[in-house]
Amino acid sequence: MRPARPDPAVAEIRRAVRAALRELPPAAREAPLLVACSGGADSLALTVAAHDVCPGRVHAAIVDHGLQDGSGRRSAEVAALLTGRGIRATVHPVTVTGPGGVEAAARRARYAALTAARRHPDTPVLLGHTLDDQAETVLLGLGRGSGARSIAGMRSWDAPWLRPLLGVRRAVTRAACRAGELPVWDDPHNADPRFTRVRLRQEVLPLLEDVLAGGVGEALARTAAQLREDGDALDAWAARLLAAARDGDALLVEPLTPAPSAVRRRVLRSWLLAEGVRELTDGHLRSADALLGRWRGQGPVALPGRLDLARDHGRLLVRRAGLPPPGPGCRRAERQ
Amino acid sequence: MRPARPDPAVAEIRRAVRAALRELPPAAREAPLLVACSGGADSLALTVAAHDVCPGRVHAAIVDHGLQDGSGRRSAEVAALLTGRGIRATVHPVTVTGPGGVEAAARRARYAALTAARRHPDTPVLLGHTLDDQAETVLLGLGRGSGARSIAGMRSWDAPWLRPLLGVRRAVTRAACRAGELPVWDDPHNADPRFTRVRLRQEVLPLLEDVLAGGVGEALARTAAQLREDGDALDAWAARLLAAARDGDALLVEPLTPAPSAVRRRVLRSWLLAEGVRELTDGHLRSADALLGRWRGQGPVALPGRLDLARDHGRLLVRRAGLPPPGPGCRRAERQ
Repeated sequence: MRPARPDPAVAEIRRAVRAALRELPPAAREAPLLVACSGGADSLALTVAAHDVCPGRVHAAIVDHGLQDGSGRRSAEVAALLTGRGIRATVHPVTVTGPGGVEAAARRARYAALTAARRHPDTPVLLGHTLDDQAETVLLGLGRGSGARSIAGMRSWDAPWLRPLLGVRRAVTRAACRAGELPVWDDPHNADPRFTRVRLRQEVLPLLEDVLAGGVGEALARTAAQLREDGDALDAWAARLLAAARDGDALLVEPLTPAPSAVRRRVLRSWLLAEGVRELTDGHLRSADALLGRWRGQGPVALPGRLDLARDHGRLLVRRAGLPPPGPGCRRAERQ
Repeated sequence: MRPARPDPAVAEIRRAVRAALRELPPAAREAPLLVACSGGADSLALTVAAHDVCPGRVHAAIVDHGLQDGSGRRSAEVAALLTGRGIRATVHPVTVTGPGGVEAAARRARYAALTAARRHPDTPVLLGHTLDDQAETVLLGLGRGSGARSIAGMRSWDAPWLRPLLGVRRAVTRAACRAGELPVWDDPHNADPRFTRVRLRQEVLPLLEDVLAGGVGEALARTAAQLREDGDALDAWAARLLAAARDGDALLVEPLTPAPSAVRRRVLRSWLLAEGVRELTDGHLRSADALLGRWRGQGPVALPGRLDLARDHGRLLVRRAGLPPPGPGCRRAERQ
């Protein structure tokens, strides 16, 4: 008798885990694996698949956010389920506090607990985000409208975070759990229409699928991947240019001027962040860039935090706002 | 008595026209202007604003697609309305035929008629696309999922086409028509839910506005602008690299290898299109790029049109598919 073939959904998830592990840098590829498991279909299917692919190397961490009644008991049940399948599992209770709403605070606490749960410096932490999560993230970013960065979605590897399932549909993780007779816990938050992400999932994406005749989730995920790669290429260009233009506290104008505005704005963003300027908007960066690309001797550009950016003798400088203009004749003296 | 201030909507459209004209290259800035006018609110408000801003320089072209009963009469009415306001206007009947559905065929016929209607080689053709059209275009592109190129939307200047209203909401053109007592013609096609664009406008965008708490149209338009600029910067990088790597019919591997994959794929795309390869997908370009970035002596990559792409002694070559592999030992001989 031949051994039974694995269920197609289970096989797809194992393949995705193997492919993700192959892309890791060598040290992480050999390290023990930590998998974040909530007990939901995505992370449960991921945990079991990782254990199947790398038996003995997987440790599951169940973060108990303590936000719902019975969360401690439920976390213990997930740990027992995994232990029963031969997977080491520990529960990590966290306290959810701090600014930015409960979702953001829970995320911070969870990521801190997972980082602390790593027992080896090269250990990757596997997260169960799927193609559907990626599509929702792209739509959320679209609504922010802050350019490619905000719609480029999540990276599959962003050390120590590894997301093997970004190319796998949520329906597949559910099918894998059914096939593996894994009892799935459905977080009621995931169906609560007070959360923007839930409405994107339950209302917007199905309507888009209908109107655009299907394939929207995949299209959004594909677009996100390409935008990330485009963004990385432009960031690399900007980093080279920033290194060439830095001059102490200032930025030399001359190496920047021939570059396209999209690259110059990336240089300005990195440099201004490094100079301690915060809350930069696209508008700030476009005004700052006009000092390079549309130079007609204009005055300084206002930046957040009562700072401004002035051009003086072929250099850009961040100053406290309201300082007198640069030395006499400087605007006329500069001819480039 | 002071002269009455123009209505705010009228003023916004005039400002947008002035700003767009300032961005034109010098020759086009001085040339006569052709405005495409359908009689709908967007193009009507644009035509009148262009005439207000540049009296005597504007000629309106009304394209009669002949697709609806009475379209000839309606076109003549629009022409009469404009002439009554002192704007020269001519009707251009076209025949809508050819492949790709009636929308695409109508567009082809319209753009050909407008191109032919220009009486001066530098004349820009002003089109009434608004911020709302841009947002719909971005969503359509998202559904295709072919990366930044497909969601970068329409350009404000893409000679001879000038789109001054890409930053103006459709509600503003309507308000301007009301203020100017311009009778607007509502094309029934613009409310027909058989068209994908109509459903995006009437169902998807309002839902997204509701779920993401507003500002979606502007966010999509802002994102499109940034993606276009990013794309232009990457295209410029790729063009320099292609010039450095071209070697007769072949492409040298060595100058390409250090570049990021996103740039290499752009180089490959331009080069393969120039070599006559058609219908390239993202998948083709990724496989082709693996000959540069993941070279392990693999065989040729299949391309559409029974072609393939082979790496041989540090060069990429397009060949008829099914040719024998390059000369003996070449795969092993190449060590880079």
